[in-house]
Amino acid sequence: MTYCLGMLLDAGLVMMADTRTNAGVDNFSCYRKLHTLAEAPDRQIFACTSGSLSVTQSVIGLLNEGLPSHDGTDGIRHLDSVPTMFRAAHLVGEAVQVVRNAMDPALAPHDISTSVSLLLGGRVGTEAPRLFLIYSAGNFIECQPESPFFQIGETKYGRPILDRGLNCMTPLPLAVKLAFLSFDSTMRSNLGVARPIDLMVMPKDNRQPVLTRRIQPDDTYFNELSLEWAKALAKAALTIPNPPFLPEG
Amino acid sequence: MTYCLGMLLDAGLVMMADTRTNAGVDNFSCYRKLHTLAEAPDRQIFACTSGSLSVTQSVIGLLNEGLPSHDGTDGIRHLDSVPTMFRAAHLVGEAVQVVRNAMDPALAPHDISTSVSLLLGGRVGTEAPRLFLIYSAGNFIECQPESPFFQIGETKYGRPILDRGLNCMTPLPLAVKLAFLSFDSTMRSNLGVARPIDLMVMPKDNRQPVLTRRIQPDDTYFNELSLEWAKALAKAALTIPNPPFLPEG
Repeated sequence: MTYCLGMLLDAGLVMMADTRTNAGVDNFSCYRKLHTLAEAPDRQIFACTSGSLSVTQSVIGLLNEGLPSHDGTDGIRHLDSVPTMFRAAHLVGEAVQVVRNAMDPALAPHDISTSVSLLLGGRVGTEAPRLFLIYSAGNFIECQPESPFFQIGETKYGRPILDRGLNCMTPLPLAVKLAFLSFDSTMRSNLGVARPIDLMVMPKDNRQPVLTRRIQPDDTYFNELSLEWAKALAKAALTIPNPPFLPEG
Repeated sequence: MTYCLGMLLDAGLVMMADTRTNAGVDNFSCYRKLHTLAEAPDRQIFACTSGSLSVTQSVIGLLNEGLPSHDGTDGIRHLDSVPTMFRAAHLVGEAVQVVRNAMDPALAPHDISTSVSLLLGGRVGTEAPRLFLIYSAGNFIECQPESPFFQIGETKYGRPILDRGLNCMTPLPLAVKLAFLSFDSTMRSNLGVARPIDLMVMPKDNRQPVLTRRIQPDDTYFNELSLEWAKALAKAALTIPNPPFLPEG
């Protein structure tokens, strides 16, 4: 299982991914799902991946090596040289199609799905940060202020806190806290999602540095956030008046 | 879609179900999913249902009319006369099998699933309240104190609040509040789950009355609970210290 979250806010871009992969409950591993696809003075591009690891790694591998040109003459096409994030999303969608078309004939007879989805986020040139959700067929949508987040993988447990708490004006520190709480809810209810969690924070102001960080299983801040949240929820539930139609218990 | 929740606590039994059914997003209706199966001085038996309405209504209909005896001679078998909740669960499981076996040949060619699941809760004689989850194949499990709740239908959005807040010693008024919050989270994230919500509360002490109630779409208490909860969460998120590795935003 997997849980990845991207938030596009007025203040910047946040991307977060867990690292647990499993083939059955008796075969767990830790693999990176938040990838740096381009890192240069004029661009920083990141992707979170969900789906069979052999497929997502192939997509990332192909993007790192570059896709052949359409007519076979122009050399390779690469995220290092796309002029916008929109063109980056096109190239990633194409990589998904190329990899799935190549792998499907071998995997389909074994009933192994090649479905994948990706969050693609970052900045090219002087563009503000942008965030895309790339579907399994290679088509994609872009994040907009009215719905300022995308999730892929195990999305449901961690969604209520975002629906209630996040909007496009949320400042980055609060957004990262809400993202952590969303992951905490998911990890409590699904053993297939677990720390370490990889995190990327890109402030909209491009003079501020991009932060990447791994939250380890014993991370003190995350542990305290989880504990404080549980306490706050318990207190909040007690504070709300009891249902008037029930005798006091 | 559907969301049903049962809680078996030291203080008693809580069952809750939404009422929305839909065939596509353009065809919504309101149908009762929390059913009274037996109501007599020596027994109160309730069921919540999830699955295709034509199947669940047939199961409830068959249980209300009674199942034929095994040898065809003894008349019908009925929840009015089972000696324990365990036997009630057996009979409901059998009704599921009978209905699905009868309907499957007609529905399968149309790719219509006959899968259903039920929560069966209540009390027979001097037994303490018991709660069962009846699967689509007619087999079932019984709720135990270590995991004091069952969910069927759209279970994930509403689970984190229960995982964090509920244990078998939770008093009934707080349990009902947590159940409402679980429904509130689910309804915010899935339009296929909606008020009215039907509610049943059976105190363990059988001298106290069983309460049944419908929470309407304009219920003032529920609206205030939802509002207060959103406020409390926002406040709690602000109270937790910001991540130490981020600049203050």
